[in-house]
Amino acid sequence: MDPSTIDILSTKDLTIENITENVHMINSRAEDPRLKYVLERLVTHLHDFARETRLSTNEWMAGINFLTETGKICSDVRQEFILLSDILGLSLLVDSIDHPKPPASTEGTVLGPFHTHDAEHLSAGDTIHTDPDGEPCLVLCTVKDTSNKPIKDVNIDIWETDSKGHYDVQYKNRTVPDGRCVMTSDEKGVFWFKAIVPVPYPIPHDGPVGKLLVKLKRHPYRPSHMHFMFEKAGFDHLITALYLRNDPYETSDAVFGVKETLLIDLGTVSAEQAKQYGVKEGEKLITYDFVLVSDEEAKKLREEEAMKAMKALGRRMKLYEGLPVPDVD
Amino acid sequence: MDPSTIDILSTKDLTIENITENVHMINSRAEDPRLKYVLERLVTHLHDFARETRLSTNEWMAGINFLTETGKICSDVRQEFILLSDILGLSLLVDSIDHPKPPASTEGTVLGPFHTHDAEHLSAGDTIHTDPDGEPCLVLCTVKDTSNKPIKDVNIDIWETDSKGHYDVQYKNRTVPDGRCVMTSDEKGVFWFKAIVPVPYPIPHDGPVGKLLVKLKRHPYRPSHMHFMFEKAGFDHLITALYLRNDPYETSDAVFGVKETLLIDLGTVSAEQAKQYGVKEGEKLITYDFVLVSDEEAKKLREEEAMKAMKALGRRMKLYEGLPVPDVD
Repeated sequence: MDPSTIDILSTKDLTIENITENVHMINSRAEDPRLKYVLERLVTHLHDFARETRLSTNEWMAGINFLTETGKICSDVRQEFILLSDILGLSLLVDSIDHPKPPASTEGTVLGPFHTHDAEHLSAGDTIHTDPDGEPCLVLCTVKDTSNKPIKDVNIDIWETDSKGHYDVQYKNRTVPDGRCVMTSDEKGVFWFKAIVPVPYPIPHDGPVGKLLVKLKRHPYRPSHMHFMFEKAGFDHLITALYLRNDPYETSDAVFGVKETLLIDLGTVSAEQAKQYGVKEGEKLITYDFVLVSDEEAKKLREEEAMKAMKALGRRMKLYEGLPVPDVD
Repeated sequence: MDPSTIDILSTKDLTIENITENVHMINSRAEDPRLKYVLERLVTHLHDFARETRLSTNEWMAGINFLTETGKICSDVRQEFILLSDILGLSLLVDSIDHPKPPASTEGTVLGPFHTHDAEHLSAGDTIHTDPDGEPCLVLCTVKDTSNKPIKDVNIDIWETDSKGHYDVQYKNRTVPDGRCVMTSDEKGVFWFKAIVPVPYPIPHDGPVGKLLVKLKRHPYRPSHMHFMFEKAGFDHLITALYLRNDPYETSDAVFGVKETLLIDLGTVSAEQAKQYGVKEGEKLITYDFVLVSDEEAKKLREEEAMKAMKALGRRMKLYEGLPVPDVD
């Protein structure tokens, strides 16, 4: 780079007091207004964090090492940064911001680090597990829009652990997906499958995030749940899960995912259902009616809430590609 | 873990508004008051950042991927997280907070990611470089305390790039350290050596940090400088560098390290000096008198400034192992 082409910004003699405005100044030439705003907020919070804690060099280095270890342990089947975001409540927060839900719709929750893209596409009534030790559970669901109209052809990702509380990807010898599938809703918005009763399990805690939990005297458990993800053009992407009521970890989920509206009671398969769905009478049963929000509804609500929040913060903002940026005109 | 041993905190039904206090609550059982305070501030800033930007899921995922890549590229000889901290001004800020300097002492600056622990211990007058293309430069220094008394037996790490602007560790075929050494000051506080005239160079910009700089339209250059690190029991660890005045990047250092008091003018070796130090007359010359702060002076100043800053923030704090924590008694 030819130094003569650099238009010089003076960022010399920086101190505890003036460093932040100088970093903003040098970052202010970014073209994307959204990147500029996000960076401006990031740098402000990062610096305020250091100033408010009087962060020591040793603590800073501990942070550098923590982040480095967190990155190093990530692999194709392990995402420790998502786990970190989960246990700090950031994942739940971002999902709540980005996927606002009108009252009648199904709430979202954390994605977690165990979704994969290689799940098999199964047909209605198929079994998603090969685990012989899991307690069989029939799952009968529908998916509708906010006006109670069934939605067909929704792609639904479903994933849960085996009876030992491990996802397939946590086994080193995994060759094919297990305990997960993709289904499509039918004309009546129905999808159903055979699974096992979810069990509580600890998030992976042999890495940096697990060590942090120990220091914070926090347990690593998640209450029993089954993950669902819904995708269909025209509808807001829904990442959610169903939780078994009265699980011992119901109120202390390590990743803050539980919501009252997502709690379910395990039912029992009736004689009639047993016949209809080809399972045993008395088997465990999960039923749930999911409600998706249209893209338009979600966009409208997201933008309204964003502008309302910016106003409450006293910031003069406008929307840029649906997200707030400073209104400098 | 036996669920019955868990004393339950209810963290259910979390929303954009109440998630932060709930994460604080679940983290509040950490025993170390400093860890508890640092985490409380970290979570507050992380959540406020997401709320103030209305961070989208896509942006969050971009952040997760950025951090993962940053971790992945780290190695024994590359620390991309330090580089990230450097280009965001955090490193300079933390050094300023942790190593306060009374007016008469030498200011600190960024460590950077290129210090190693394998530099050879050299004697006064030795040459720290094998680079035949570097412009020879005699470096004559002293190290004193704030009452102008020479300090002997200080261990001084010195490191600089070669004439091409690369540190030894940036060469894949590096077998031994080059362009770096450790020296010890003599009875008069003197240390001197033969080096090469520093040149400007880009920080490594082929990784995630480099990509971020491009998006921010920032150049990756550092002005010409030579690193120094001082260590002696009883004195505050000093990490600093000397910068050549009028370097094209003097006022736009990619990592915000330049300070007026650390700028030097390249001198010229006189006939007398040439004879005394065994170099050629007219060769380039760097002279500098470093002033170290005692541990006691640094501790006193650090604690005073910490408490002053806490007071300015309106926080009722006390010191715990020299660092502020909430005063809850």
